[in-house]
Amino acid sequence: MAQSHGDRLSAVDASFLAQERANSHMHVGAVLIFEGPAPAYDDFLNHIRSRLHLVPRYRHKLAFPPLETGRPIWVDDRNFNLEYHVRHTALPQPGSEEQLRALAARIHSQRLDRAKPLWETWLVQGLERGRFALISKSHHALVDGISGVDLMTVLFDATPIPQVAPHEGEPWTAAREPGPLQLAARGVKGLARLPFELAGGALSAATHPAESLDVVKEALEGIGEVAWAGLNPAPETPLNVPIGPHRRLSFVRNDLNDLKLVKNTLGGTVNDVVLTVVAGGLRRWLRARGVRTEGLELRALVPVSVRAKDQHHELGNRIVVMRGPLPVYVEDPVARLRVVRQAMDGLKESKQAVGAEVITGLEALAPPTILAQASRLQFSTRLFNLLVTNVPGPQFPLYVLGRELEDLFPVAFLPENQSLAVAIMSYNGRMDFGLLGDYDALPDLEELGDALKDSLEELVVAAGGRKPKRRRARKLEPA
Amino acid sequence: MAQSHGDRLSAVDASFLAQERANSHMHVGAVLIFEGPAPAYDDFLNHIRSRLHLVPRYRHKLAFPPLETGRPIWVDDRNFNLEYHVRHTALPQPGSEEQLRALAARIHSQRLDRAKPLWETWLVQGLERGRFALISKSHHALVDGISGVDLMTVLFDATPIPQVAPHEGEPWTAAREPGPLQLAARGVKGLARLPFELAGGALSAATHPAESLDVVKEALEGIGEVAWAGLNPAPETPLNVPIGPHRRLSFVRNDLNDLKLVKNTLGGTVNDVVLTVVAGGLRRWLRARGVRTEGLELRALVPVSVRAKDQHHELGNRIVVMRGPLPVYVEDPVARLRVVRQAMDGLKESKQAVGAEVITGLEALAPPTILAQASRLQFSTRLFNLLVTNVPGPQFPLYVLGRELEDLFPVAFLPENQSLAVAIMSYNGRMDFGLLGDYDALPDLEELGDALKDSLEELVVAAGGRKPKRRRARKLEPA
Repeated sequence: MAQSHGDRLSAVDASFLAQERANSHMHVGAVLIFEGPAPAYDDFLNHIRSRLHLVPRYRHKLAFPPLETGRPIWVDDRNFNLEYHVRHTALPQPGSEEQLRALAARIHSQRLDRAKPLWETWLVQGLERGRFALISKSHHALVDGISGVDLMTVLFDATPIPQVAPHEGEPWTAAREPGPLQLAARGVKGLARLPFELAGGALSAATHPAESLDVVKEALEGIGEVAWAGLNPAPETPLNVPIGPHRRLSFVRNDLNDLKLVKNTLGGTVNDVVLTVVAGGLRRWLRARGVRTEGLELRALVPVSVRAKDQHHELGNRIVVMRGPLPVYVEDPVARLRVVRQAMDGLKESKQAVGAEVITGLEALAPPTILAQASRLQFSTRLFNLLVTNVPGPQFPLYVLGRELEDLFPVAFLPENQSLAVAIMSYNGRMDFGLLGDYDALPDLEELGDALKDSLEELVVAAGGRKPKRRRARKLEPA
Repeated sequence: MAQSHGDRLSAVDASFLAQERANSHMHVGAVLIFEGPAPAYDDFLNHIRSRLHLVPRYRHKLAFPPLETGRPIWVDDRNFNLEYHVRHTALPQPGSEEQLRALAARIHSQRLDRAKPLWETWLVQGLERGRFALISKSHHALVDGISGVDLMTVLFDATPIPQVAPHEGEPWTAAREPGPLQLAARGVKGLARLPFELAGGALSAATHPAESLDVVKEALEGIGEVAWAGLNPAPETPLNVPIGPHRRLSFVRNDLNDLKLVKNTLGGTVNDVVLTVVAGGLRRWLRARGVRTEGLELRALVPVSVRAKDQHHELGNRIVVMRGPLPVYVEDPVARLRVVRQAMDGLKESKQAVGAEVITGLEALAPPTILAQASRLQFSTRLFNLLVTNVPGPQFPLYVLGRELEDLFPVAFLPENQSLAVAIMSYNGRMDFGLLGDYDALPDLEELGDALKDSLEELVVAAGGRKPKRRRARKLEPA
């Protein structure tokens, strides 16, 4: 889908804006760790500049039609200033990953300015062992769920030698901003054309969650991809409390082979194993907090990408949303996996999606894309305890300006009353977890990360594997 | 004035909160540059921890009574987390002052979280030539205008060896938070006791600026310290445009002796010289932008601290506000100073204040204090083109953990429709300017800083002095 000056926001994208609250931000992103040395700021700016034409939305800002006449419109930002969007910073000594996480958490704690294109990328110097990092942050509404292309995607090369991008160096000139009358005209046109105004429905659902389950159901069926078994509220847990604007991040590194060993030995899909690991980690963490887990099954919202033919029989990315069962009541890891598999098989036989083992290439490396889709269901936050996303990525090394990407930790978002989101992405033999937590509700997010790690270990041992090595970078961190 | 759990916000402090907008923040602060090496983060935390009991407000958060029953109340923050308020970061290489300014501007572009104590202090490593910096940011409402004590004040020592603070090390325990009923009771009590609700008046003045000049006049006379000659709107300039949430900073270093030379040779006060320099700088900058300056006199809002006896005959800091004439129409610097002097003398003969040459010691080193006072007059922003503050500071070196403070650049705030604020403070033989500008309205803030520098040079030369040396740190910066 081309991104053009004058595009009207889709109803879903408009709902991302409408649903954003002071404490519940609607941006997503990733923390990317690279081998050093860090590129010079100017070189990095030039690299982005050379590829920005591939993602026109990154030079668009929102134009708001006069009140009540319709959804915002994307227009060229005539004052676009790349230095504003691409920030340069450094970690204090010793440049630990803990310090990197604190920085990334701070960056993700701040809402994007709606008067400008809705993204930021931070070039971070001074990460220990000679490495550097990129921290990316884009608003949901910016990310085009259909084309699946975002800035990070176009910055990467599959070879150490940067490629010349198509149409590189063509000059960019901003189109004229529409005046209030033009905006009003566009807005009214939009209203007349749209039969079901999802944005409005979402808003009302957020304010009256209890009364609007039927509306939600209708909206979901309007999207047409999910069959919900039992739309009753999710159980109450310490995860589901009011959240503040501030965030914490935790990283968990895993080898993809460990998850595959479990899958091949004990059965199920990689996605089943992921849910089992998350359920086991939450079980440990809840019990350490003194929460009873007997009979407790949490519910994850799991967005999944599949390739499918659309109405016009073109092959494209389609995102579906699954209800992921998290049987924290089961102590034995093998039994827990079995419960997850049975539940997922049952869901698949209904209209739900096949899962996350679709083979994807470089062009699908867009964690924000899939995360953005997840918030289509933002308004049903009370039906879920947390978001768990699991995105398959390329299994070969990627490069930015010749530096190899070593680790990729996706960062999701927190809907109201959800203090934890788990974002997972496989890349080049790894399967790293990015945990996003509310700063005040989850002071023990690191312990939760450790519990997830222990939970995978348990499964690997049960599958006859060796205890996974705790990766070096993690060991080097200060406690 | 003691700061206690349960204090109700003054009407003025409540108006700071009420007037804060997404784009017009109500925090102030400073950028402080020190000789290195930077202290370890833990040592810095401990230093703050040892003195925090001297500024109780820094562990208070706001409690809001139920709607419409009264002003917020300061209460102990039971979840107070020093690591949240004291941040650790570093500049990217080469660690230039330009990079420091960009960081400080970003920090000042973000509103403080109202659910926590309203301040942040950033320890910044990696400033070139082995230096480090502190960036402070406190909400107006936090800063007690009467006692004149803020965190920065209590962190400083007048000797390289840190002193032991009185009552250092006494444990702190949070008082219990009031429940909704207690809050409601306190709120109603407040309403009944307050004859003139400044906060409400301020809000209405902000929304109806034209109709409410009489209200404003009344409010000013209610404060009782200012006689306004002619309350007509200030002239329109490129400075007075709608502002966004983002900021730029520029630093101008001056020797106090240069300003004194001008004063002693050509007459007037240091404050008169400052206004003349600012008028001359604005003249150059406006003309470079193609703005006609014939007949143009801008109007600065100048808060001034004087020592005076209060109603109870105790000596205390009093803050008064002056209207500072900025005759940008006068080309000749000596003639321009004469116009400023005449206008200021006339103002002094009315009820206005004497000026900024009051001798102050360490205890008055609190730029946020005086800046906070300035916003008492926030609601009259249309009567002024910009804020110019000039605070005399101590003329001896200050230390934090044995490191000498080399430069102090105060950071003011931008009311709506004011894209520039000039904050000035003398310290140890220097008189440095901190320019705060709107990011989008003033892309040329650095040029404005240069114009101010040129404007002082002109005056020094006219007073028979040598051209002031451009200080080394400035020269080392990249263009």
